[in-house]
Amino acid sequence: ANPETARLARERQSQLTKPAGALGDLEELSVRLAGVLGSEKPAPHGVAVLVAAGDHGVARSGVSAYPPEVTPAMVANFLADTPAGAGGAAVNAIARTVGAKVYVMDAGVNADLPDHPRLTRAAVRRGTRNLQQEAAMTPEETEALILAGAALAGRAIAEGADFLVAGEMGIGNTTPAAAITARLLGADPAEVTGRGTGVDDERLAHKVQVIREALGRTPTTDPLEVLAEFGGFEIAAMLGMMLQAAAQRKVVILDGFVEGSAALVGVALVPHLRDYLFAAGECAERGHAAQLRSLGLKPMFNLGLRLGEGTGGVLAAPLLLSAAATLREMRTFEEAGVPDA
Amino acid sequence: ANPETARLARERQSQLTKPAGALGDLEELSVRLAGVLGSEKPAPHGVAVLVAAGDHGVARSGVSAYPPEVTPAMVANFLADTPAGAGGAAVNAIARTVGAKVYVMDAGVNADLPDHPRLTRAAVRRGTRNLQQEAAMTPEETEALILAGAALAGRAIAEGADFLVAGEMGIGNTTPAAAITARLLGADPAEVTGRGTGVDDERLAHKVQVIREALGRTPTTDPLEVLAEFGGFEIAAMLGMMLQAAAQRKVVILDGFVEGSAALVGVALVPHLRDYLFAAGECAERGHAAQLRSLGLKPMFNLGLRLGEGTGGVLAAPLLLSAAATLREMRTFEEAGVPDA
Repeated sequence: ANPETARLARERQSQLTKPAGALGDLEELSVRLAGVLGSEKPAPHGVAVLVAAGDHGVARSGVSAYPPEVTPAMVANFLADTPAGAGGAAVNAIARTVGAKVYVMDAGVNADLPDHPRLTRAAVRRGTRNLQQEAAMTPEETEALILAGAALAGRAIAEGADFLVAGEMGIGNTTPAAAITARLLGADPAEVTGRGTGVDDERLAHKVQVIREALGRTPTTDPLEVLAEFGGFEIAAMLGMMLQAAAQRKVVILDGFVEGSAALVGVALVPHLRDYLFAAGECAERGHAAQLRSLGLKPMFNLGLRLGEGTGGVLAAPLLLSAAATLREMRTFEEAGVPDA
Repeated sequence: ANPETARLARERQSQLTKPAGALGDLEELSVRLAGVLGSEKPAPHGVAVLVAAGDHGVARSGVSAYPPEVTPAMVANFLADTPAGAGGAAVNAIARTVGAKVYVMDAGVNADLPDHPRLTRAAVRRGTRNLQQEAAMTPEETEALILAGAALAGRAIAEGADFLVAGEMGIGNTTPAAAITARLLGADPAEVTGRGTGVDDERLAHKVQVIREALGRTPTTDPLEVLAEFGGFEIAAMLGMMLQAAAQRKVVILDGFVEGSAALVGVALVPHLRDYLFAAGECAERGHAAQLRSLGLKPMFNLGLRLGEGTGGVLAAPLLLSAAATLREMRTFEEAGVPDA
């Protein structure tokens, strides 16, 4: 991020026609956007949500309320022709509302997905290995998905995106996200493991035990090793998306808990990635608040979302576009001839 | 609001392709929208923000950090031609970003405002009387502004608005808002009086004392008498906007503390107005949280806004449009062939 344009933006915010600080958190967000986008009058336009889908060997350990067949069915739902347009899932409906483009990636779904012009194929394996017993991914598989995520982000940027939301779908994927989070934050799994799609108390206790066993397999804290051991294909892809966005000085809007685990790996690898991350909402999944604290990010809303797909990130886009618009389009006291305090 | 369409919407939300409850507060918001708009697949489009400006006799009592000359200067700013389009204030920049129309009303500004095609003239007096010493408005003046607000809301609806944000500008107007709030909630003024545009501790104590003296003039709790005694022209206009929107079964997005005082008067007059109110953010002004508790509304975000102008309400519009879109555009588990839990 550019400290000079951020400095100029901070100065400009103090001169705009409003009491100092009256735009609350939008002011600091606008200054951060000015730094990322390299202009004290940032003019972001395109919003893209990149939904990576993958399956998880650990789903066989009974960690989710839903069967793994939901993953390919939801990919089909993201792509379906509907009366309202392409896609019948929440992320599609919300993206149409705020004018965001949806990209869908097969990052490693355990099914024969039919060809579709809007589906990016990046799978190297049908679902990960069961992280309870062995490394979920090989280093080569992990790298392949990071690169695929980066490539899709590059394409979205080439097609006009200034804001990128990394989104995900994958039955069982709050388990790898919690394992990564526990290891990288040095937290007990019970503190950062939530109910995902909605497991009951008994299954939650089992999920924590599965994660505990996984973490017991290896003491590694190397970020890429942690990702390969405990991660998932869509998490690796989201990491690649975030790194690519930052490399091209674009904004990453961080959605929920699974995205947060990719961000933790990213910031452990490249600390200044954090400058490019903007937290959408605090999601209802246990452990998300701890991720945001570690990343030093303040969420914009708390609507109790826990869906994933990038839904929260897309919802946050108009707030960030508005923050940028205040810097770009508001007049100063001097320009407007308004008496200052 | 229509309980049958709300019931159908609640049923539909439970069948959409997502874990039950995973869209958090958006689900209940979508059900309320279905009730107001009379369809289990609500299709709101137009968003209008109606900014009423007025001056306040009590500003002469030294309750604000800014001089009263700011009110007409900001009206000019709302209307100004700028490189980005019409209006150089925060509400203009945010409204352009989210696609909302801005309407500006002179509800009683203490200045010769030049004619402007986008300025609705509704002033019956140049600023209110000083509520510290006498009734701010006569009953006739109060009624005139309620009707003018209703008329402008009717026009915005005729021009396509499904969501209405009542916004305001008026140096000194957190003082009448706090006085109304204290009386209608039966609260001590110190509990519901904040810093407005940013007064220091000493001036805040003085502001509380001014409100205490005003409240001491009369024990009335009749909503319209409370409005006339302690209110302001733009507060009366916003009340009219809200009542008109509800009468036409449109959505009112509630912005900040001054708007909240108009809503308290409205709900005291017509309790079912509450069904049409949707709280945007919790604003930073002390007393706003107490208003929302009394209205039974949960805010969508907490960005620390304290600007007014309807800025928070406009920011919330995409969240509500998105909530409606989930009901209207998402497929059910059955439609999508996705296995349910």
